[in-house]
Amino acid sequence: MVDAHENNPPHEVVIVGGGFGGLYAAKSLKKANVNVTLIDKRNFHLFQPLLYQVATGALSPADISSPLRSVLSKSKNTKVLLGEVDDINPDAKQVIVSGEAVRYDTLIVATGAKHSYFGKDDWEEFAPGLKTVEDAIAMRHRIFMAFEAAEKESDPVQRQAWLTFVIVGGGPTGVELAGAIAELATKTLKEDFRNIDTSEARILLLEGMDRILPPFAPELSQEAETSLTQLGVNVQTKTLVTNIADDIVTIKQGEDVKEIAAKTVLWAAGVKASAMGKVLTERTGAESDRAGRVIVEPDLSIKGHPNIFVVGDLANFAHQNNKPLPGVAPVAMQEGEYVAKLIQKRLKGETLPQFNYVDRGSLAMIGQHAAVVDLGFIKLKGFFAWFFWLFVHIYFLIEFDNKLVVMIQWIWNYFTRNRGARLITGKENISSVAIDSNGNYQPVKTRQPLSV
Amino acid sequence: MVDAHENNPPHEVVIVGGGFGGLYAAKSLKKANVNVTLIDKRNFHLFQPLLYQVATGALSPADISSPLRSVLSKSKNTKVLLGEVDDINPDAKQVIVSGEAVRYDTLIVATGAKHSYFGKDDWEEFAPGLKTVEDAIAMRHRIFMAFEAAEKESDPVQRQAWLTFVIVGGGPTGVELAGAIAELATKTLKEDFRNIDTSEARILLLEGMDRILPPFAPELSQEAETSLTQLGVNVQTKTLVTNIADDIVTIKQGEDVKEIAAKTVLWAAGVKASAMGKVLTERTGAESDRAGRVIVEPDLSIKGHPNIFVVGDLANFAHQNNKPLPGVAPVAMQEGEYVAKLIQKRLKGETLPQFNYVDRGSLAMIGQHAAVVDLGFIKLKGFFAWFFWLFVHIYFLIEFDNKLVVMIQWIWNYFTRNRGARLITGKENISSVAIDSNGNYQPVKTRQPLSV
Repeated sequence: MVDAHENNPPHEVVIVGGGFGGLYAAKSLKKANVNVTLIDKRNFHLFQPLLYQVATGALSPADISSPLRSVLSKSKNTKVLLGEVDDINPDAKQVIVSGEAVRYDTLIVATGAKHSYFGKDDWEEFAPGLKTVEDAIAMRHRIFMAFEAAEKESDPVQRQAWLTFVIVGGGPTGVELAGAIAELATKTLKEDFRNIDTSEARILLLEGMDRILPPFAPELSQEAETSLTQLGVNVQTKTLVTNIADDIVTIKQGEDVKEIAAKTVLWAAGVKASAMGKVLTERTGAESDRAGRVIVEPDLSIKGHPNIFVVGDLANFAHQNNKPLPGVAPVAMQEGEYVAKLIQKRLKGETLPQFNYVDRGSLAMIGQHAAVVDLGFIKLKGFFAWFFWLFVHIYFLIEFDNKLVVMIQWIWNYFTRNRGARLITGKENISSVAIDSNGNYQPVKTRQPLSV
Repeated sequence: MVDAHENNPPHEVVIVGGGFGGLYAAKSLKKANVNVTLIDKRNFHLFQPLLYQVATGALSPADISSPLRSVLSKSKNTKVLLGEVDDINPDAKQVIVSGEAVRYDTLIVATGAKHSYFGKDDWEEFAPGLKTVEDAIAMRHRIFMAFEAAEKESDPVQRQAWLTFVIVGGGPTGVELAGAIAELATKTLKEDFRNIDTSEARILLLEGMDRILPPFAPELSQEAETSLTQLGVNVQTKTLVTNIADDIVTIKQGEDVKEIAAKTVLWAAGVKASAMGKVLTERTGAESDRAGRVIVEPDLSIKGHPNIFVVGDLANFAHQNNKPLPGVAPVAMQEGEYVAKLIQKRLKGETLPQFNYVDRGSLAMIGQHAAVVDLGFIKLKGFFAWFFWLFVHIYFLIEFDNKLVVMIQWIWNYFTRNRGARLITGKENISSVAIDSNGNYQPVKTRQPLSV
């Protein structure tokens, strides 16, 4: 092949992270005249918005995961590398992957966020969060094991504690978890036990602000609260969690301090930047915000490093409306696509106007026939919102077989109220893993085993 | 309700184990005038014949699992108890579950079998077997991680070792694993890697006897070997494994001793009775065979204990053809159903002729359009056998949503050669777990982490 540039080595784009930001950047570079290396510590893209359905037994991990190599197998300019980035060397234009250097011309960092317990890291043991497949399996283990333990428990006080589920955080994940657990208790599991009435389970959703779903319009927050209450969820707003210990959640409402006896506490409250945030600030002099997110320029690059971009939950982009864009999938997708476009423009000696996020709205599922959708120009609730939510999630699932299987599962679950994936598997206290420098999976933290 | 027997407490049937034997016994007792308690350490029935498809990324664990409570929720006389049986007291007619006594009038023990390394337990670390969901996830981790490691490896000798897969045991499981890995290497993963050609993977199937699939007719063994060879599997019969160590399998063929450098070794060779076998022999004086299986009477009871039955892989029933029935699902199902019927007859003061196994044949999948089916009166191979295999497995899946999802996945995989469930998840070295007396999952053995 004769090419005007045949003596120039191709432009090397390295993308760290195969979430929405990194994957959409890679997909958008499919036909660009660049070499792309996508580095991730997992071999699959995870569709995180549906992770709560894995945690509550409606779907299997593979239903919402797509092997990165399979998604990108047709992108012949793209290489997938399984490994963890330990460091970055901006002077040498290298990332260090499991001890080995990988050179880049342009770097895109999209490693996302992890849970934050606001400095109370000892709460994690009692109140697991939901970011990875392993988190979801561990959460599923806790939820279904709690009903099993209640079935066996003869002491009524202990039994009530087993049947009490506290969800901390009234954002979309908290609302979706609370709604799904309420449906489990009142519908799916209703006929399954002989000693307990699962519909007597208490499900508490705790939110510090004065309403749940703060990013939505107030009338939709109200609607969500009403729907959750009808499902049997006890919604407590203006409620601060001051302590989480074995079996006891301590809350503060105004001046009142209360204790809730609960064996299952789920964390949906806070996130902070992943470890790459710190690496970037140290190596590039970039600034970060309180959550550790890297402050980016209007074109999503790092100040003084026009060839290093940060996209998705790791980025703090505040050049629009003066407040950082939220850590949601649509932001990450649009950022990834923008950077891919900008790289191609630059190779032609051109540029692009600054990144501009087009907010198409927010969605949250509550339960059957109940969801809230805020598209700005129109607000939906009830059946239409519910149907819209299903449609959007199927539409954005990456691979066609995921779409098909999730749709079939949902149709089946709809008619039977069943949730077939309610297996209690694995070792509960392996809920978060990482790959060490030898490529082995290692538990990040060994939690206390669940005392059933 | 007035009942002639209202002063008699109902007859208590306790079933230990929710595999094919235990579950089919429980289902057959649905309308009987007895109370049934089904005890299992897991909350789901596992359709083991398809477990190899989880290990090779074609299906998810939940696709082949059915929550026991859900399967039995309509059996109002049946209670499911999650727990492990530690002991049996035949005099008091009690089983001890996690320290607590459960009384029975009739006991059915159906706890199955586990891997056996013929006394070489140190091989387990290098050659995991396939009995549980966790085993399948760990095997999946190893298989897909081997391709990832090969992609990164620069030393050709090491790379070849990563691309060498040794399957020990040429029964149906070994044949099905070998065929599935060959299809992965030559079809599914073919476009996914950039540094390796996955179709260069070596897949060796080792069998000690003079042909694979010994229970089948010799011409079908030959057919299976031909089909596997066409798929790229290297079949070695009359081959004894004399040692398995890190990266090296030592084999003996006649007088020749050879070493095979392989990073992935999978065990499909031997099984032995589960721990309940020993408990039963100690407590009841029952005899057991070399594999630890309990010798049963013609009616599947234990000698001298007409109210204790053993069914499925744990039982040695040799009252037909003078050799023990094989440890396969149809035997367990028929035995479970027979005992359920016998219990109901006995309650009426009647009895049944001795158990008689109706052998409807054997099936093994090799790959697309290739399987072998031996129904005795007819032998199928190629496309018809393949289609028959699919049909039978869908038919026997317990729940309708399993049937639907597995069918959709298979149709999808058929047309795309994709296998969507090829996630590398979890911690590889947790490959087998048990529940301790407190109900906590504990790893049975902590294996060495995979050195990638």
